[in-house]
Amino acid sequence: MASLSTCPPLTRDSVIQARQLIRSHVHLTPVLTNKTLSRMASTPRDPAAVGSGRTPARPILRLWFKCENMQRTGAFKARGAFHAIKRLQQEPGWLESGGKGKGVVGYSAGNHAQALALAAAEDGIASRIVMPTTTRPNKIAATRGYGAIVVFSGPGFAGREAVAAEIVAETGARLVPPHDHPDVILGQATAGLEFQEQVLEQQQQQNLIEEGRGGGGGGGGGGRRRRRKGLDAIIAPCSGGGLLSGTALSCEGTGIRVFGAEPEFEGADDGRRGFYSGARIVAHAKTPDTVADGLAGAVGAAPWGLIYDRGLVGGMYAVTEEEILAATRLLLERLKVWVEPSAAVPLAVALYNEEFRGMAEREGGEEGWDLGLVVSGGNVDVDGMVRLFS
Amino acid sequence: MASLSTCPPLTRDSVIQARQLIRSHVHLTPVLTNKTLSRMASTPRDPAAVGSGRTPARPILRLWFKCENMQRTGAFKARGAFHAIKRLQQEPGWLESGGKGKGVVGYSAGNHAQALALAAAEDGIASRIVMPTTTRPNKIAATRGYGAIVVFSGPGFAGREAVAAEIVAETGARLVPPHDHPDVILGQATAGLEFQEQVLEQQQQQNLIEEGRGGGGGGGGGGRRRRRKGLDAIIAPCSGGGLLSGTALSCEGTGIRVFGAEPEFEGADDGRRGFYSGARIVAHAKTPDTVADGLAGAVGAAPWGLIYDRGLVGGMYAVTEEEILAATRLLLERLKVWVEPSAAVPLAVALYNEEFRGMAEREGGEEGWDLGLVVSGGNVDVDGMVRLFS
Repeated sequence: MASLSTCPPLTRDSVIQARQLIRSHVHLTPVLTNKTLSRMASTPRDPAAVGSGRTPARPILRLWFKCENMQRTGAFKARGAFHAIKRLQQEPGWLESGGKGKGVVGYSAGNHAQALALAAAEDGIASRIVMPTTTRPNKIAATRGYGAIVVFSGPGFAGREAVAAEIVAETGARLVPPHDHPDVILGQATAGLEFQEQVLEQQQQQNLIEEGRGGGGGGGGGGRRRRRKGLDAIIAPCSGGGLLSGTALSCEGTGIRVFGAEPEFEGADDGRRGFYSGARIVAHAKTPDTVADGLAGAVGAAPWGLIYDRGLVGGMYAVTEEEILAATRLLLERLKVWVEPSAAVPLAVALYNEEFRGMAEREGGEEGWDLGLVVSGGNVDVDGMVRLFS
Repeated sequence: MASLSTCPPLTRDSVIQARQLIRSHVHLTPVLTNKTLSRMASTPRDPAAVGSGRTPARPILRLWFKCENMQRTGAFKARGAFHAIKRLQQEPGWLESGGKGKGVVGYSAGNHAQALALAAAEDGIASRIVMPTTTRPNKIAATRGYGAIVVFSGPGFAGREAVAAEIVAETGARLVPPHDHPDVILGQATAGLEFQEQVLEQQQQQNLIEEGRGGGGGGGGGGRRRRRKGLDAIIAPCSGGGLLSGTALSCEGTGIRVFGAEPEFEGADDGRRGFYSGARIVAHAKTPDTVADGLAGAVGAAPWGLIYDRGLVGGMYAVTEEEILAATRLLLERLKVWVEPSAAVPLAVALYNEEFRGMAEREGGEEGWDLGLVVSGGNVDVDGMVRLFS
């Protein structure tokens, strides 16, 4: 990781620069829309599901999906990893002191592992990834497939930071943490920047088509439509908070509101609880065993600084395991994209979280919202998916 | 269906016009690439799998995927249906004689049903869809959800054309067949047109990035790269032949070669057998029970005229059930898109059909091929997918 003293400031301009740095290494992932899902999101829920005495909210939500499951290595994590690796090479003296051979170290049982291994390999930098011995064989194989040396830390998450620290001390390698560093946050933030531009482009095309219809006298019917002007809000999933804080940073000053989404099972909603109690929950006593296994971590200090201290996130919402699986099924069957359950948590909030829906109704009013959902990753294998739905 | 006498000629120019007609009603579906899958396609197969005494082919294949699973109603069929409906409304006298009320009739247990129901509904045209009583409840519900009246024809495919003909005789509705009509073929052909343009655009962006690297002195290493100039070949799945013949028509005169892909199970490769015996196989004695259930039909007369008589298709290839399931798994896990097995048949040909691979090695030579694969649809539900892979 590049030294903190050399990091660019955490501003939207730095996100724009980060994008230039990684642009040729990451995919411009597709942004999709889906009428059925937007209609579902704009339909009040069954009063029985909402609970006694409450009137279901009636938000108007036009959904946009940023498909980071189609990002290289199957998750947004490639963005942060490539940015960290590029920034490291800009650090004065790093290359000259044999930086490439000393390499980088990461700890991850999931998407950060493969992302870091790939980003390092593409620039000829050695990488070591610390993984629990309980990591699934296909993830170990994929990480090795990108050229990393896998080092095992034991059966749980407990000892992995210590093992990584040992490697740093012994080899002079640089640690690239999964979320708790400005360079990683700036990399993840580039997804939000693309998202804003892509929605605007697609809306402009839609506006042109509608003007064309009106001008040609065809079509007819229907009321006058508002010309759309970009996203009104974005929901991003939150684990360590790199993606959520980055997304929020990419929206700073634009007027686009950003919200975080978490599973609530076994206390995985540490971000939400910390947000409303005013103090970050630093770690989980026991890792929550949620189907959204990518969101089991606790929010890191650097992301928290943006999410809470700088007030860039407007709210945090949590959903149940059943809601996450239902949203996963909808993304598969309706949006036709292959996602891990963690990636469906924002859709679950938009469809099933009554607090969010009530707020979106009040804030969005009669015009409603163009609401972006970050589909964060798709790293689940067919056998895992079969187990989830059997 | 618009009268045959009013149909545009089956030329590439007519495809361009068809695209203008339906452009605001269908999605410009994404075109994706995947380094892992391209590498797999460019790696010789295990000699044991190829068979005794043969040397595995070594084609160089850069794969491009046209994601029609993300098309409206989840399949390319929306293109043909919208085009048929738009063309019908251009027929002199149709509207004045109460055409919208008389409506349209289709027969389909699959993707054509929903596509026709949607296309008709969007223009306020009544639709009736004839379905076997054995159709899965979710497909019946989806078709009704788009506003169609579902009429049941009995347990198999046998009587459905007769039932549709009865409805036409009684109501004056127009039949919209699933593939055997020029308007449907021209609609399906628009996917091929988009595919050509999208690949060219992405290659131009890639060329710019590489020039930028070369000019700036960065990157270094590696040999001189050829500037890419569009697709060299496309593989499309073949059932009734609407998509395959349309794709071939969209490539006429471009130099892009087009090939057909079928399952071989229980004789589902009627297109291939007819192609190499010189005579169309008009129908299956028994519908093949392949996992690629969208490809169980026999090639229709109009598509055959393009595929074989006009020589627009360069070859037909078939794959096994195991190969189709393996390719399906790869599209899910690697490309991260939700597909029905029929949509994986072109990838199965590219990866596992030794005849195809040998030909691609000879024809593609050292430069290799930019090979387009049409991912035709994604209409399978989670329970169906779980059954396939359990």
